[in-house]
This record gives sequence, structure tokens and C-alpha cells, in this order.
Amino acid sequence: SRSLNLAVIPGDGIGQEVVAQGLKVLSAVLPQDVKLETKEYDFGAQRYHATGETLTDADLDALKRHDAILLGAIGDPSVPSGVLERGFLLKLRFAFDHHVNLRPSKLLPGVATPLAGQPEIDFVVVREGTEGPYTGNGGTIRKGTEHEVATEVSVNTAFGVERVVRDAFARAQARPRKKLTLVHKNNVLTFAGHLWTNIFNKVAEEFPEVTTDYIHVDAATIYLVTDPARFDVIVTDNLFGDIITDLAAAVSGGIGVAASGNINPSGDFPSMFEPVHGSAPDIAGQGKADPSATVLSVALLLRHLGYEAEATAIEEAVSADLAERVGKPARSTAEIGDALAVRVAG
Amino acid sequence: SRSLNLAVIPGDGIGQEVVAQGLKVLSAVLPQDVKLETKEYDFGAQRYHATGETLTDADLDALKRHDAILLGAIGDPSVPSGVLERGFLLKLRFAFDHHVNLRPSKLLPGVATPLAGQPEIDFVVVREGTEGPYTGNGGTIRKGTEHEVATEVSVNTAFGVERVVRDAFARAQARPRKKLTLVHKNNVLTFAGHLWTNIFNKVAEEFPEVTTDYIHVDAATIYLVTDPARFDVIVTDNLFGDIITDLAAAVSGGIGVAASGNINPSGDFPSMFEPVHGSAPDIAGQGKADPSATVLSVALLLRHLGYEAEATAIEEAVSADLAERVGKPARSTAEIGDALAVRVAG
Ligand SMILES: CC(C)[C@H](C(=O)O)[C@@H](O)C(=O)O
Ligand SMILES: CC(C)[C@H](C(=O)O)[C@@H](O)C(=O)O
Repeated sequence: SRSLNLAVIPGDGIGQEVVAQGLKVLSAVLPQDVKLETKEYDFGAQRYHATGETLTDADLDALKRHDAILLGAIGDPSVPSGVLERGFLLKLRFAFDHHVNLRPSKLLPGVATPLAGQPEIDFVVVREGTEGPYTGNGGTIRKGTEHEVATEVSVNTAFGVERVVRDAFARAQARPRKKLTLVHKNNVLTFAGHLWTNIFNKVAEEFPEVTTDYIHVDAATIYLVTDPARFDVIVTDNLFGDIITDLAAAVSGGIGVAASGNINPSGDFPSMFEPVHGSAPDIAGQGKADPSATVLSVALLLRHLGYEAEATAIEEAVSADLAERVGKPARSTAEIGDALAVRVAG
Repeated sequence: SRSLNLAVIPGDGIGQEVVAQGLKVLSAVLPQDVKLETKEYDFGAQRYHATGETLTDADLDALKRHDAILLGAIGDPSVPSGVLERGFLLKLRFAFDHHVNLRPSKLLPGVATPLAGQPEIDFVVVREGTEGPYTGNGGTIRKGTEHEVATEVSVNTAFGVERVVRDAFARAQARPRKKLTLVHKNNVLTFAGHLWTNIFNKVAEEFPEVTTDYIHVDAATIYLVTDPARFDVIVTDNLFGDIITDLAAAVSGGIGVAASGNINPSGDFPSMFEPVHGSAPDIAGQGKADPSATVLSVALLLRHLGYEAEATAIEEAVSADLAERVGKPARSTAEIGDALAVRVAG
């Protein structure tokens, strides 16, 4: 019999509520013969306030033993900006070498979009997850004085760029349209830009069936609102990926339905799956949060572990649930979770 | 009698066509007693191919003598990416210390937007123009090998941040809503982020009437499509400003109407005004380009030089022209320029 050993990090704010629904749907969709084990971890603002810890070496050792990690949201206004982000979220991505940050955007039928004319949107962003301006390189001199200088260093390596570009080409190759767009700013950030562009062009030779193009990140934001259908797979740097995937989420139904995977394709460390949204402290504990993004993150988790049919079942359930919402009164977080669990079990 | 001594850089592609209309409208709007002198410069792809030069010290000396600079567009696919951007556009911004990159976004009546429901959009982005990841700091080692490492260094100084933040506060103070939003990514780029945030909060104390808030750049792209009315004045870093102003242009009528000023408020060097759009080689020479962005850049130029009434006259003319376009056949670049010249003269 098979087993799935999951680390669960509800985290802060609405994280608790949405993760509960994610697990509910996961239990409902898993085949009988799969033994699901979950262990909950208490990372987040509360633990930080109580102990000063965000993510220790012992924590990483414990997390390492799981098949995958499901995370709700981390972050609270009571913690200074950057502490939990750098000390937990980014620390985990870097420690477990989550270099493929996968963020699909699909505008499902019936789902509201701020764009006029309900355009077709169905693309995936492959965001690099362990390099670029996210490395924490940089520093400050003469802090707090009128002569302060602060730097941020974007670090880009052939090794790091090539592996994520190759991953993106493979994903493009596996999709019907087989199109890959590189998004960067190679006319200004010429050092990193040339590295990305050269590697992209080199790897392209190995994937002759994949159509490629290049767009500057600023122009990409224009296309995301005027012609999102032009995108199939996008590969981009860590920071550009952060920015354009929030915009992508906004135009394709909002962050209530945007899922993501922080993937280590080698399997040396467990991959982590989380909704793109944050902890939303303003609506926490009220049963108002939409668990769909977390449930869709569970689908990405299942697909990553080889449960393709179960992943698809979840995606179809969410799609059907969203289509049925139109004109109906709002349901609670748990009601949506219940409805999705029924659908995937049925 | 007064005089206005303008450097004109038509540049590449549609630059020629749109600048011609900008000058046409400028001549029509200027009071009789203002003596307009213009000198055209041949910067751009052609000169680069002929001489290998993009912008020499002698060029800078010549440009320095003008009251302001009007630029069409620089860039051509025949020139490798980065050469004209770094060698001309950015070189000029840095040489003339254009630290206030001003980019207003206003959705005018009758103008099409990709957003549903015709939201209210009327904000100004004050983009820092001489620091951040645009400095050209960084480098490459082991170029072209599998061990290549490329870095880009974002440089942020208290001096550079404070002057642009102060400029933005003054602009916010002068607007009816008096609201200023700092856009950064201070939870990840903590060195630069803290510098920006601390200076922003410090300068805020001098402007008690201005309401302030802070948004991460990724979230800002969401608000720009879901709730653009929340913005009044935005101040941000060079790269974030580049990205969000393209998106801002897209939602508020497209880059056909997006104007910008590269301003040195000290007046030590002439400021430069240019449409946000590029050289659009695909439609160059066909009379298809909309000159409105250039004409609106002329308005920013006039306002910068103290011709407030003339600037407003141009903006009203463009607004009226755009409102009248609805349902009419497309006009040529020159026809739109003629119509605007008639309006401002009338
Ligand atoms: C919270 C923050 C560290 C994170 C990021 O910038 O990557 C978030 O915005 C995201 O996109 O997952
Ligand atoms: C062409 C390029 C150098 C420039 C920039 O990145 O600033 C452009 O995108 C702009 O916004 O003016």
C-alpha cells in the first residue's frame, strides 16, 4: 500500500482556515489504498513572538522527512516586514532548493476578471526561486545617516538559470501550444539579461518543437492585460516572476484562486505548495476566505507526487464549483471546502 | 520677449512622425512673444551604424545648452539589445541627473481601457531615475561557460531617495486628494527597502496634510487592475517604476497616450520629455502612430518651463480629441497632429 506523508504549515491569519479545507479535499480525493499521514508545524507569527524563532536547523531536519509540504500563509502585521518573509518563507525555499516556482493562471468559466470581454487565459509562469535579487546579497553602510547607501545584489548563475529554463522548456513541450516566452529586462540589466537570453537560446535548440519569444518585463505587464491569450508558458527571474504572477492572478480570477508550487524537481528535498495569497489578517477567523487557491495548490502537490488523476479531479471540482457560484449568495470557507470534498469524492 | 530653445531628438521608427506633430502643436500653442528655436539631433540607430556613436561628450555639451529636450523614440531591432538603451537613453538620464521620472496616468473620457467598467484613473507615478538596478553596476565572470555568474547591483542612497521622495510629497501636497503611496518590496529587498521606507516616513512628517501608505510592488500590480482609483501619487524605485508605469499606461488608454518627463528639478541640466512608447518599427513610416503621447509630453515640457496655461490647453485639446474619436474612422498621425494644433490655437 502507498503512503503520503505531509508536512502541514497552517501559519497565520486565514492560513489555518484554508489549509483545513485543503486537507479535507485531499482526504476525499485520495484512493483508499493511500495512507495519508500529516504532521502540523506551528511556524509563523505566534511562534516567532513566543520564541524568537522563525525556522531552525532542527525544523528543517524535521520538514525534510516529509514527501511534501502544504502551507497556508505566513505573515502578520505584528511582525516587522521582512522577518518572516526572509526568516521563514525564503529561508525554506533556499534551504530546500525550490528553484522551480510554478504558478499557473487559468481563467475558469464564470469567474470574474477585471478585464473587459472575458479573454482566454491559460498559461503557466515558471519563476526561478533561488537566485536573482532574492538571495539577500547586498547591505547597508552609514545606516540611518544622510550618507546611507543600501545595495541589493541580483545573483544569476549559468547553473541556476539553465536548470529552470530547461524545466520551463519541458513544460512548454508537454502543452498543446508548445510556446515559451522569456520575460526579463535584458536591455537594461545587461549582465543578467545576457546570461538569461544566451542560455534560453541555447536550450531552445534542444526543443525544436517549442516556439519561443522574448518580452521585456514592463511590456509583459501590458500584454497581461491587453492580450493574455498570447502566453502559454513564461520563464522568468525570481523578482519579475513575483511581480507578474500577482498581476496574472489578478486578471485570471484573483488571488482567491491562485495556486503555486515551490518545487525541487530533483526530489532531494520535499517541495512546498501554497496559495499565492497572504495571511489576510483583516478577514482571518471569519470564515470568509476562499479556500480554492489552497485546494488548487493541493492539486499541484498531488500532480508533483504522481497522482495525476486526483490532481485533475480537484481542478475539475474547483472549476465546476466556481462556475456554479454565479449569482448565488457567498458561502463560508468550510462550506466551499465541503462542496469540493463532495465533488471529488463523487 | 521670451525664448524657448529646444533640443529635438526624433530618433528611430515612429519617433520622427510623432515628434513632428509634437512640434506642430507646440508652435500652435506658444504665445506670439515666445521665440521658439529648435535644433534637431540625429541620435539613434542610423547614427550608431554609421559612426558607432550613441552619445558623446560633445553631444552632451551641445544638449546642455538647451532649455529642454523633446525625444521621440530610440531603438531598432538592427541594434543589439542594450546598446542604445544603456548607451543613449540611460546615459542621458544619468548624465543630466534626471532623477524625477514623471509619468501621469489619466483615463480620459471615451478612451478605451482593457479594464471592465471604465474605472476612474488619475494618478502620477514619480519614478526615481538615477539609482536602483539601473546604475549599470554589476558584472559577469566566466562568461559563456557553465560556471558563468552575472550580477546586477541596485544602488540606493539616502541622498538619491530623499530628493525624489520629497519631490513626490510636494506633488501629492499640490493635488486635491493629497495622497502618496510608496511602492517597493521591503519585505524581500530589506536593505534598499528599509532605506526607502525610513526616508519616506521621515519626510512624511514634513507633510502632515499628505495621507500616506505603502504597497509591495507585486500587490501594486493587482490594485492597478482591480482598484486603480486608490492611487493619487506613487513614488517608487527606478525598476519598479519602469514596470508599473507600463501597466499604468496600459490600463489608462494605452501607450499611445502615455507621456513622461525625465526631470532635473534643479535646472542644472535640461530635462527631457518623451512618450512612454518605443520606436514601434512595425508601423514606422506609415502614418499610423498616435502622436498623442508625444503631444502630452510637450505639455509636461511646457509645464516644467512654467507655461502652465499652454500645458493645460494641450491636455484639454488631447482630451477633447480622444473623446471625439469614438466610432470614427482612424486618422493618420499628421491628421491627429493637425486637429490638435487647430484646437490649441483656437
Ligand atoms: C511574501 C513574499 C516573500 C513572497 C515573494 O516575494 O516571493 C510572495 O510575494 C510570493 O509571491 O510568494
Ligand atoms: C528603453 C528603456 C531603457 C526604458 C527604461 O527601462 O527606463 C523604457 O522602458 C522606459 O520606461 O522609458
